[in-house]
Order: sequence, then C-alpha cells, then structure tokens
Amino acid sequence: MTYCVGLRLKSGLVFMSDTRTNAGVDNFSKTKKMFTWEVPGERVITIMTAGNLATTQSLISLIEERSKIASDRSATILHEHSMFQVARLVGDTLKEVIRESNSNDGMKGASKFKATVILGGQIKGSDPTLFLIYPEGNFVEVTTENPFFQIGELKYGRPILVRAFDESLDFDEAVKLLLISFDSTLKANLSVGMPFDLQTYEKDTFKVRSEVRIEEDDAAYAEISNSWGEALRSAFKELPSYK
Amino acid sequence: MTYCVGLRLKSGLVFMSDTRTNAGVDNFSKTKKMFTWEVPGERVITIMTAGNLATTQSLISLIEERSKIASDRSATILHEHSMFQVARLVGDTLKEVIRESNSNDGMKGASKFKATVILGGQIKGSDPTLFLIYPEGNFVEVTTENPFFQIGELKYGRPILVRAFDESLDFDEAVKLLLISFDSTLKANLSVGMPFDLQTYEKDTFKVRSEVRIEEDDAAYAEISNSWGEALRSAFKELPSYK
Repeated sequence: MTYCVGLRLKSGLVFMSDTRTNAGVDNFSKTKKMFTWEVPGERVITIMTAGNLATTQSLISLIEERSKIASDRSATILHEHSMFQVARLVGDTLKEVIRESNSNDGMKGASKFKATVILGGQIKGSDPTLFLIYPEGNFVEVTTENPFFQIGELKYGRPILVRAFDESLDFDEAVKLLLISFDSTLKANLSVGMPFDLQTYEKDTFKVRSEVRIEEDDAAYAEISNSWGEALRSAFKELPSYK
Repeated sequence: MTYCVGLRLKSGLVFMSDTRTNAGVDNFSKTKKMFTWEVPGERVITIMTAGNLATTQSLISLIEERSKIASDRSATILHEHSMFQVARLVGDTLKEVIRESNSNDGMKGASKFKATVILGGQIKGSDPTLFLIYPEGNFVEVTTENPFFQIGELKYGRPILVRAFDESLDFDEAVKLLLISFDSTLKANLSVGMPFDLQTYEKDTFKVRSEVRIEEDDAAYAEISNSWGEALRSAFKELPSYK
C-alpha cells in the first residue's frame, strides 16, 4: 500500500507521500511516489500515485516521455492551459495504461491494475488546486468543504486531518499536521513506510517552495512523533470521565 | 459496517459496539451487536459481532437456542468448562452458519456471508479473557502484547488505542479511551453509528458490572467528544514545528 496526502492551504499546496512498495511481506522496497514538473515562472505540477506499481510507473513514464517529445499538435502537461485540462490528460493517460494492462488475452485482472492519483499545482492565470483522479480516468477537484485528498491507506491518518485541518494553517503547521497523520498510519500499518517525501508550494510563485525527504533517522520527525504521543496521552488523562 | 472493541484490563473486561447496520446507504437501521449470557456467580460470556447480518443473527440465535434446550450430551456455552471451549463452540457454530449459507446451489457468494466475532468473559476457575473468532471458525486469544481486539471498521479508531491503551487503566479511563476511539471513527465513516453499547466486567465477580446504551443526545458523550477535539487541536498547536 501507500499513503499520500495533498492539502490546499490559502497560502499554497502541501504534498506528502510515503515510499514503501510491496508485493507480499517479503518483497518490499522503496519507490518514489511524488513527481514534479516545473516551468519556473509559469507552472508547477505535482503528481502522487497509489496503486499497482506497474501502472503508476507506466503512467509517469508516459507523461514524462510525452512532455519531452511533444509536437505542436499533441497535448502535454507542460502545454495545457489549465489544471483542469492537465487533470483530463492525466486521467486519460491513466485509463489508457489500465486498459492496455487489461487487454492481455486470457489475463483477466482488472482490479489488479488499478491506481489512484493526486494531482496538484498551479498554472499562470489561475489559482493553485488539487484533483483526485480515479482509475476510470474521471476526477474530482478540491473544494472548500473538502479541502484535502488522501490516497492509499488513508483511514488511520484521517481523524486528525478531519479534526485539525484548516485552510488557514501556515506551511509549518500544515507540515506538522501531515507528519502526525503519517505517524499515526505508520504506527498501525506495515505497508506504509519511511522515508517520506514532502513538498510545499507557495501560491503565485510558480516554483517549488521546498522539497525534502524525511529519512528514518530524522531527529526532528522523531521529536514530533514522540511529543505527539505524549501530548495525546496527557490530553487523554485530562479528559473528563464518562459520567 | 460495524465497529466493536474488546479490551482486557488487569481489573476486568470492557466491551463496546456501535449499532448501525446497512445494506447500501438508503437501507440502514439499528441492531444490537452485543450479547451476554450470565450465570451469576459462575460465568459471564459476552459476544460482539461484525459482518453479514443474516450470518450474525443466525449465529446468536443458534447459540441462544442451544443453550436453552441442551440435553446433557450436547455442549452449550453455558456448560463448557473453559472460555477456550466456548470459543471453539462459537467458532464451530459460526463456521456452520456460513457453510449453510454457501451451500445454496448456484448461489455462490462465499465472502458475502462472512462474519467476525469478539468473545470475552470469565468462567469460574480461570481468568477473564478475550478471543477474536474468524469466519473460518478458528480464533486467537488476547495476549499481553496484543491486549485488545477490534472488528469491523477498525482503522480510524486504532491509532489512539495503539498509543494510549495500557492494561492497568481503570474502568473509567478505559471507557473514556473507547469513547475517543469510537468518536474518531464516527467522525470519518458513515457506516458506524450511534447509539453505542457499552459493558464492563470486573474480574472474579461473575456478573456484569455495568451496561449502558449511549444515545445520540448523551450529554456526557458530547462533552468527551468536544473536549477531545479541543484537546487535540491545542496539543497540535503546542507541538514543535518540523525543523
């Protein structure tokens, strides 16, 4: 499995993904799940993927390849005029990859090739936004009522997001919140693993604000994890009893 | 779905279950998922169920019926000499119900009839214990390393249990912890719903210590839910930033 979250803040976007990939418990490794295309001053586009690794790798390779060899006629994520059109393009490409995997005669396994994508970024002329793209190629856009997307093993880390997320958080707070959400997931599920990839994007800058890989021995992360554990336990102790 | 948790404390057992049952989103109702058999001074046995409602109702009906009309020869949960034997009996009965549902000619749907059970209690002569019983009829017993069981929609409410549970909690603290875990689940998933059933059992008393149904308008629960939300947000604010 995988855990990725994309947040839309008033001041920009924050992306975080884990890096574990596994087929069974004795075949696991690290793989990058966050990919960025940047045209400084003009657009920043970030994609995070969850699902079948063959599918997500093909998706990223196709997007990458097409963005490089594009003739004037073909659409690429570097030439589309809006994030909505980029989402359509990524959705169509994802659908294409899944369809091709399924078309092998006699090798039925539709659900096996599924993948889900979080797409976010900003193109000059419109606001930063996020999309959640389904294996069928269709997608939904982030809204004020639903200001973040999660993919993969999302349940463990959801309660804290539901309770503490607010679009007016600053970048430091949003990163802290994501680290807590990832930490809760990590503590409960073996298929989500460190290191984590973290990226922030500040509105109207059209370049990545910060990008960091948080390794297992990261002291600042360990401090957040430990402090949060203690804070939870002491909040729990101080809570009134039931009746 | 469903959410049920059984905790083993040093001082006894605590059980909590939700009551929502649904087939789709427009067909839902309340149903009891916690069932208790008591022989005062001799044994208390509690069962919580998750899964297909037809399966779990048949299971409980069979157990109930057999415990009433037992001849000297047949085993019932009121006559077995240990919780381990009760677990075997419940597991066998569960397997029997699922096998019968699956034997309808031409109506294949093995996974549809699945159910999982938490069994807990104490029989005179041994300690209180908990079992997690699988649809296949086999089961695992609670251990010091793994001192609680969850069934149903268990992921949302797991992180707080993992972090704050300790066998030396008293009953009030354990109830508080369960309410937080259920509240986190409720906030994130429509298929788990109030009222909740809550039961506590004190070691070596051989009678139920307390049993309460927590309704939606329960003021004490609302206070815990709100206080916990506030406590989380303030713990979050006070946490150090990442670097």
